[in-house]
Amino acid sequence: MPAIVTLLTDFGLADTYVGQLKGAVLGVAPTVSLVDLTHQVPAQAVEVGAFLLWSAVAVFPAGSVHLAVVDPGVGSARRAVAARAGRGDLFVGPDNGLLVPALERLGGVAAAVELTEPRYWRPQPSTTFHGRDLFGPVAGHLASGVPLRELGQPVTLGRPFALPAPSVSAHAVTGTVLHVDAYGTLVTSIPAELLPAGYVVHLAGHEVAPAATYQAVAPGALLALVGSAGLLEVAARDASAAALLGVDRGTPVRVEPGALC
Amino acid sequence: MPAIVTLLTDFGLADTYVGQLKGAVLGVAPTVSLVDLTHQVPAQAVEVGAFLLWSAVAVFPAGSVHLAVVDPGVGSARRAVAARAGRGDLFVGPDNGLLVPALERLGGVAAAVELTEPRYWRPQPSTTFHGRDLFGPVAGHLASGVPLRELGQPVTLGRPFALPAPSVSAHAVTGTVLHVDAYGTLVTSIPAELLPAGYVVHLAGHEVAPAATYQAVAPGALLALVGSAGLLEVAARDASAAALLGVDRGTPVRVEPGALC
Amino acid sequence: MPAIVTLLTDFGLADTYVGQLKGAVLGVAPTVSLVDLTHQVPAQAVEVGAFLLWSAVAVFPAGSVHLAVVDPGVGSARRAVAARAGRGDLFVGPDNGLLVPALERLGGVAAAVELTEPRYWRPQPSTTFHGRDLFGPVAGHLASGVPLRELGQPVTLGRPFALPAPSVSAHAVTGTVLHVDAYGTLVTSIPAELLPAGYVVHLAGHEVAPAATYQAVAPGALLALVGSAGLLEVAARDASAAALLGVDRGTPVRVEPGALC
Repeated sequence: MPAIVTLLTDFGLADTYVGQLKGAVLGVAPTVSLVDLTHQVPAQAVEVGAFLLWSAVAVFPAGSVHLAVVDPGVGSARRAVAARAGRGDLFVGPDNGLLVPALERLGGVAAAVELTEPRYWRPQPSTTFHGRDLFGPVAGHLASGVPLRELGQPVTLGRPFALPAPSVSAHAVTGTVLHVDAYGTLVTSIPAELLPAGYVVHLAGHEVAPAATYQAVAPGALLALVGSAGLLEVAARDASAAALLGVDRGTPVRVEPGALC
Repeated sequence: MPAIVTLLTDFGLADTYVGQLKGAVLGVAPTVSLVDLTHQVPAQAVEVGAFLLWSAVAVFPAGSVHLAVVDPGVGSARRAVAARAGRGDLFVGPDNGLLVPALERLGGVAAAVELTEPRYWRPQPSTTFHGRDLFGPVAGHLASGVPLRELGQPVTLGRPFALPAPSVSAHAVTGTVLHVDAYGTLVTSIPAELLPAGYVVHLAGHEVAPAATYQAVAPGALLALVGSAGLLEVAARDASAAALLGVDRGTPVRVEPGALC
Repeated sequence: MPAIVTLLTDFGLADTYVGQLKGAVLGVAPTVSLVDLTHQVPAQAVEVGAFLLWSAVAVFPAGSVHLAVVDPGVGSARRAVAARAGRGDLFVGPDNGLLVPALERLGGVAAAVELTEPRYWRPQPSTTFHGRDLFGPVAGHLASGVPLRELGQPVTLGRPFALPAPSVSAHAVTGTVLHVDAYGTLVTSIPAELLPAGYVVHLAGHEVAPAATYQAVAPGALLALVGSAGLLEVAARDASAAALLGVDRGTPVRVEPGALC
C-alpha cells in the first residue's frame, strides 16, 4: 500500500514551487501517493495554514505523512522539525506553530525532532526554499520508513499560538470566526457539543437560527449549522454569508439558548 | 493496472475540501490514480458542472470511476446515487442532473442505484459534506471492485435538465453558447456534423467565418472552428472571443450556409 | 519505480483540459506518477512558460518525462516534437522555443524528433488540442519505454528566443527581471556566480542591499538574495517587491560592487 504524503503550502499554483516540492519528495520516495491539501494559504499566514491543516488531517489513514510549509522565517534561526502524533501520523515543517493544532487533533505530540541531519536533505540547500531542499526530502524519507529519531535531535515544539478556544458562561458560549471558506461560509471556533438546545447565533449585529440543511431556508437566507469539521458554521443558502454579513476571520460570535426555550 | 478515479467539484482550491475528499477515497482504495477534472465549477452551478463533466469523460479508459459533487441540495431529500454507463464507466454523485449528460455520452445509463447502504460510507456522515462522507468512500469501493448493486436499491435517475440540443431548419442551425473557457473561447451546442458546407456563424450581431486554425487569421481576429469536444467554437486568435463580443454562456448562436455557396 | 510525467500548460484549472490531458497520458501509461508544474502560464506566453519549465526540471530524477503545452500555433505548420536532454530527461511539446531553456539546463539536446508517427497518437486528432491528442499519448509512450526514434524523424529544434543572458563589464553586471513570482519576488537573470563581493542592486531607481535571509531586514523592507533557482532575486519581507517597486517582468537590473568595498 503506497504511503500518503499530503502537502499544504502558501506557494500558490502560478509558479512551479509546488511541482519542485513534489519532485523532491518523489526523488526520495517514488511510489508515494501525493495529495494536495491546499497551496492557497495566504502568503506567510501561519495561523490560517494551521487551521487549514487541522481541518484536513483526520480524514487520512493513520500513519500518513503531512508536509506543511508556511514559513516566513525560512533561512533564519527558526527550527525545521518533524514530529509524530499520538495516532501515528508524521508531520514535517517549520517550528512556527503551523503543525501544532493538527498534531493536537491526532493525539498530541508523541515525539519531535529538529532536522539536524543533512544526509536526509538535498545537497547544498538554498536559504529560501527549505520546502524543496529539507522538508520535501525528509517527508520522502519518513514515507519510506526512516525512523523519526534518525532525522535529528529531540526537541520540544514551540507553541506561539493556538486555535482560539471558545469560552462558556452560564448564559452564552462565545467564540470567533476561525475561517471563511470559498463559499463564504463562516466556520467558527464553537464545537457542536457546546451548542445549547434551541440555540441562536449572534454575530455582527445579526441573529441567525439553526436549520438542518441549506434547503430548509429560502434562497439567500442565513442559517447556522454544524459543519463538516464538527464546528458551528454560519452559512447562506446559494449565497455567501461573509458577503451578506460583511464579516471576516476573527469576528466574535456569541451563541445563546433560544428566546423560547 | 491502478483504477482511475476522476474528481469534479465546485469546492475551489483555497480550502482543504478537495484534499479531504481524496483522503476519503484513498482510505478505501489506496492504490487508485486520482485525476482532478476541475474544482472550479462556479458554486452550486449544476448545469455548468454537467457540461464540464460531459466534456472530459470520453478520454478516460472505459471502466474509470467519475466522482462529481456540485450539490446545492446536500443534506436534503435529494438522492445520492451511483450509476454505470453503457461503456462501463462508473459515476457517483447527487441525483440532480449533474451526471446525466456524461452518462449519455458514454452509452446511456446501464444501471443506477440510490446510495442506501451506510456500511460503504464513513461513520457518522455530516449533513454538509457528502463528498467526503458518502461519495468519496463509495467511489473508492467501486474502484476496488464492489459491485454497483451492493451499494443500494435500483433507481431511475432524475433528469431535471439536459444540455440544450440544437435545432435544425431548412435554412439554419440554431443553438447556444454552452461554455466559455478560460481562453474566452465560446463552446456552442452545435456539433460538427450539423455544420453546412461553407457555413457562417451569427451571434451577438456579428458574423464569424470558419478558419482551419488560429494561425489562419490575424492576431485579435475572430474565427469559427470545430473544437476538441467536436462542437462548433467561436474563438479569437491570441485574444478572448467572449471579451471581444461581450457574450456569455446562454447566448444564442445561428449557423447558416455561406452567402456564396 | 513508476515513471514521472510532469505537466506544464497555459490551460488554467477552470476547464477540464488538464484533466483530459492526464486521461490521455494514463490511457497509454496507467502507472505513471503525474506531477503538475503549473497550468497558469499566461495564455499563449511561450517565453514565460519556457522560464517556468526551466525553473523546475532539475529537481526531478534524471529520465523523467516533461510534457509542456503553451502552443499558440496549434494546428498550423509549427512542428510537434520530442527531445532527449543530455541528462536523459525526455521532453514533449511544440517546437516554438518552449522546451529549449529546460533542455539546455539538463545538458543540451542529445536527440530530437518531429512527431510524425500517428500510431502513437489518439485516433482522429483535433486541430486545437494537440496536448490531449498528440503530446499526451506520446508522453505516455515515452514513459512506457518507447524509444524516441520510433516517434518520428530526427529534427533540429528551432530556437526563436533564449532566456536573456546577463552582460558583464568591468564595473557592473546587467540583466533583467525574468519572472515575478506569486509572492511578488523578482527573479533576475543574474546567476549567483556573477555577483561581486559586497554587491548592491540597482533597479527602477532604487538601490537594494543583500541580506542573508528575509528575517535580517525589517518587515516591508527590500532585500537582495540568491534564490532557489541560483539566481539573484529582489524580494521584500512579508510584502511584494513587485508592488513596492512598481516593476514587472523585463525590467532592467544592474549590479555593482558596494560603495564601501
